[in-house]
This record gives sequence, structure tokens and C-alpha cells, in this order.
Amino acid sequence: MDHSEDLNWKIFFEENSKPSHFDENVKLIFEVCQQAAIKKHRVALVTSGGTTVPLEQNTVRFIDNFSAGTRGSASAEYFLEAGYQVIFLHRSKSLEPYSRHLVGRSIFDMIEILPENIIIGQKHQVELRTLTEKYQQYKCNLLMISFNSLSDYLWLLQATTQKMQILGPLALLYLAAAVSDFYIPASQMPCHKIQSSGGPLSLSLQLVPKMLAPLVTLWAPNAFIVSFKLETNETLLESKSKESLEKYHHHVVIGNLLHSRKVYVILVDRSSSPPEEIRLSDSELESGVEIESKIVENLKERHTKYYANHKTG
Amino acid sequence: MDHSEDLNWKIFFEENSKPSHFDENVKLIFEVCQQAAIKKHRVALVTSGGTTVPLEQNTVRFIDNFSAGTRGSASAEYFLEAGYQVIFLHRSKSLEPYSRHLVGRSIFDMIEILPENIIIGQKHQVELRTLTEKYQQYKCNLLMISFNSLSDYLWLLQATTQKMQILGPLALLYLAAAVSDFYIPASQMPCHKIQSSGGPLSLSLQLVPKMLAPLVTLWAPNAFIVSFKLETNETLLESKSKESLEKYHHHVVIGNLLHSRKVYVILVDRSSSPPEEIRLSDSELESGVEIESKIVENLKERHTKYYANHKTG
Repeated sequence: MDHSEDLNWKIFFEENSKPSHFDENVKLIFEVCQQAAIKKHRVALVTSGGTTVPLEQNTVRFIDNFSAGTRGSASAEYFLEAGYQVIFLHRSKSLEPYSRHLVGRSIFDMIEILPENIIIGQKHQVELRTLTEKYQQYKCNLLMISFNSLSDYLWLLQATTQKMQILGPLALLYLAAAVSDFYIPASQMPCHKIQSSGGPLSLSLQLVPKMLAPLVTLWAPNAFIVSFKLETNETLLESKSKESLEKYHHHVVIGNLLHSRKVYVILVDRSSSPPEEIRLSDSELESGVEIESKIVENLKERHTKYYANHKTG
Repeated sequence: MDHSEDLNWKIFFEENSKPSHFDENVKLIFEVCQQAAIKKHRVALVTSGGTTVPLEQNTVRFIDNFSAGTRGSASAEYFLEAGYQVIFLHRSKSLEPYSRHLVGRSIFDMIEILPENIIIGQKHQVELRTLTEKYQQYKCNLLMISFNSLSDYLWLLQATTQKMQILGPLALLYLAAAVSDFYIPASQMPCHKIQSSGGPLSLSLQLVPKMLAPLVTLWAPNAFIVSFKLETNETLLESKSKESLEKYHHHVVIGNLLHSRKVYVILVDRSSSPPEEIRLSDSELESGVEIESKIVENLKERHTKYYANHKTG
């Protein structure tokens, strides 16, 4: 990391102020880490959903990254079931563990009104019993923290990973959020809504400093770190994923393509070449297997080895 | 409307193809209009939520307009309760009538698991009974159609208003969606994800043709048409709202400011000067009155007069 990169991420935090409820959220995060450290529990930070980049200070318009939070919310469930405490740092209103299974259906269609009671209708009983039981079982191991903008996200990412230092190699970072590469610095944003009477609009966006650099070296030097690389062009997937690993020196880059991300990923690490692949078969897909179950199983094994090599005391 | 404007909206539809499920949705819309026309029922088209503008053809990034769909989803409920059939043309995953009251709460926290049955817990029974009853009562008067992009929205808006022609002055259009003013024509979009290694990003956005012009004159010449003007700068609110009414010759422009939109709006029409105002008092706000209940009450009365003056046969 050269000196200029080092300055860029610091400048970003100087120029963009903390999100609301920041101190309360950081306190909650610290409490989870502290308790887990005492009990030697593993903690996974799962980031999920897209970040927004405001185009105006009184924000009416913003640039968004496509992400429903499918990967993150599904993975959070599998980390919980694999015994992890989970900090789920997600875009507000993106998919969440367990409730994701009900999206697109109305609860009012599942409820039956009886004179004395209101109940879940017969044909939804099995599904809702299973989901509610899981939710209620894992709820106390799940801390949900939400963000909207790029700046909110980066503030919370920095604070969370710093608080997770107390966990040493028990910490796993699973960076599945779709983070914007470009933004408009606050000082260059118009104050009011851009008027369309001004004719066509030209926007000039700056590069977001690469936060993986200070994250790996400064904020979370002992954590097991997994990042994602989403591409649309298959020919770039492996090279872009390798490039990212070589640049930041973390542990795994999961490469995926926009159109096949639910059935195929590659796992690029420092030792395996060609990279390990996870691909769902047609029969797995038909029977409802989610690729995140296999990704988490694979990572848990890698994390176990990592922990065995890095634990102290 | 001069000839060049006329061309621009036509060109937009030539350059942007129909959304998926378009023909099925238009069929559903036509059936609702046909039935209502026979029974002489009023129909309100309520548009709600923001439109997206893709920056890439394989869409990873897009520009979005801030809108949770609060105004539209609340208004749809009040139109239903005022006796309208409602076509709710809304951004996918934005707020919806009735379920909007449960946002931010997990249904799994409301469910109680009994050995033989799963029920709604005691302290949520009253609220969920009321909401479920309303939902089940009005469900058959509510057609939900969703969109994501600007182009999806405009295709559906054109088709819906054209199908509503059969209703004559029984049709009310309540255009509360936050529609983008700018877009990138498909021909100017890169095919793949924009690479951040290319350095800072310059975007050049074109003006979206003003669809209210053909809507008022060609698609829905007999409907009662209400549009919204959202501003952040108070000094521009009245003038911008009037300007819009004078330009398009429709019936009401509801002006509102980003920061006070839940307590204050102005209703600009062709005859009243200064414009009518609706403002919630502190006590109304405290007791849970929503400004949309008063807006809809006001518009229903205006629509009744309009219908009395315009009905034929």
C-alpha cells in the first residue's frame, strides 16, 4: 500500500460524517464481540445488499448497485446453522435471514380470522412453523445492523472490523455487499434537487478509495477475510479475482458472474491453481439446495484450518 | 405541444422495449376497467415509488429516485375505502397498502408456536385482525402491478391510461411515482459492468421526454388527472407547481417539499389562487391521522364535480 492510497481512505472518513445511531450500533457490536471472545465463539460479519451514492445533499436522487441481498441473507442463515454468531450488516430493506423466504407473499393471505382468535391458515402452518422455529432459535446469535449510503456502510465496516480484533482468528469477514466503486464528494454535490429545466445532465464521479487495503492491514489483521468479485464478463472473472487477492493479501476471493451467480462460483486463494469451483447440479437446484450452503460449508473448513494455524494462548 | 416534443416520446418507446409480462398485465388492467365501466364504478390509477435508470445494459448499477412509496401506498388505502377500484402501479418492493403498517417488524416475532397450532400472539391480535380484515375486504378491488425501470413504468403508464379511456370521466389518475427526469439511452450504455480501473467516471444523461403531455392530450383525454411536484427548495414550490399545470393543462398539481411532505401540501388547480393548502395539526399528527386521508377526501370531492360536468349519456 503506497502512501497516497493510505491518505485517500483517511480523507474519505474526514469528508463524510458518521451515520445516525452510529455510537449505539458500535456499542451493540462491541458487546457481541466481547461475549463471543470470552466464550471462544466464532463470529462472522456478513455484509449484504448494495450501497447508495447520493447525487444531491438533500437526497432525491442516488446511484444504487443492483443487489437484493440474496447471497448475504442466505449465507447468514447458513453461518448461524454452522454455529457462528452473525453480525449482519445489510442495506436497509434488503433481504434478511428467514423472512427472505416470505418475500412476494402477503402475510394477510396466510392469516385466518376466527371469531375468538387469529391463526395461520392450515396450508401455511408447516412452512411458518419451520421458519419461526429457526428464527426464534437463532435470533439471539444474530445482530442486525442496517445502512443505506456508501458512507454509512464504510463507517460501520471500519468500526465493526476494529471491534472484532478482540476475536483474533475467531473472526470471519464475509464481504458480500455490493459496494459502489464511484461517488460524488459532498463538496461537489448540489444542495437542492437538480432541475431538469437545466437540460441534459453531466455527472462526474470519483473513485471510492479501496477500503480492503486498510481493512486487511490495519482494521482486521488477524481475521479470516473473504471478499467477492462480481463480473458480467466471463473472460475477466478469474483474472479479476486473482488480481484482487494479490493486491490485498487476504484469504479468499469468491468470483461470480451476474447471470450464473446462483449456480456457480470460483474460490480463489493463495495456494490452489486452478481455483476451486462450486457448481450446483440440476438435481440439487431442483431439490432447492442453495449454493450458499456449500460456500459456507467450504469456508467453515478453511476457517477451522486458519484458526488452528493462528490461535495463540 | 409542439412537433419536436411529440416526436421525443414516440422515439422513447421505439428505443426502449416492453417490460416482461407486459401483455399479461395489460390484459388484467383492461379486465378491471371493462368491469368497472359496466358497473359505473370509479377507478383510481395510483402510481407509487421511484423508477430506476440503468447505467449498463447488464445492469449492475442504476440511478434511483428516493421514494419508499409512502404517499402512494397510503393513498391507495384511502381510495379503496372511499369506494374506488384501485390499480396500484408501484415500484417492485416499495411499500404496499396494508402491509406497509408492518414494515420493520418481523412476523416471526408476532407468531406463537403451540404444539397443535401456530397463532398470532396475544399482543398483536387486535392490530393484525384489523389489517387482515381490511386487506381481505378490499383485495378484490385492488390490482397490483409492479415496475423497476423508468422504461417499464412508462410502458405500463401508457397502456393503463389508454385502457382506462373506456371509463371516461370515471377514471382518476394519481401520479405519485417519483419518475426520473434523466436517463441514458440504450444505445449509449456500455454492455458490461463499468470497470473502476478506468479511473473517474463521467456520465452524460439525457432528459426524459415529458410524458404528461401525450398522457393528457392523447392517452387519457377524459380522465381527472392529478400530478405531484416534489421540491426541496420552498421558494420554488408554488411557481413550479403552477408552471406544470399551465404546461400540461390537467386538473390538479399537488406541490410538496421533501422535508414537510407528511404534514403539508398545496393543491394547485386552474381556478383557485392562492392554491388550497392541506396541513396536519400537531394533534392530528399525534393521533395518527395521515395527510393522504385528507388529500384523497379533497380529490374525491373534486372528482365528483368533474364527473358531474363531464358525464355523457
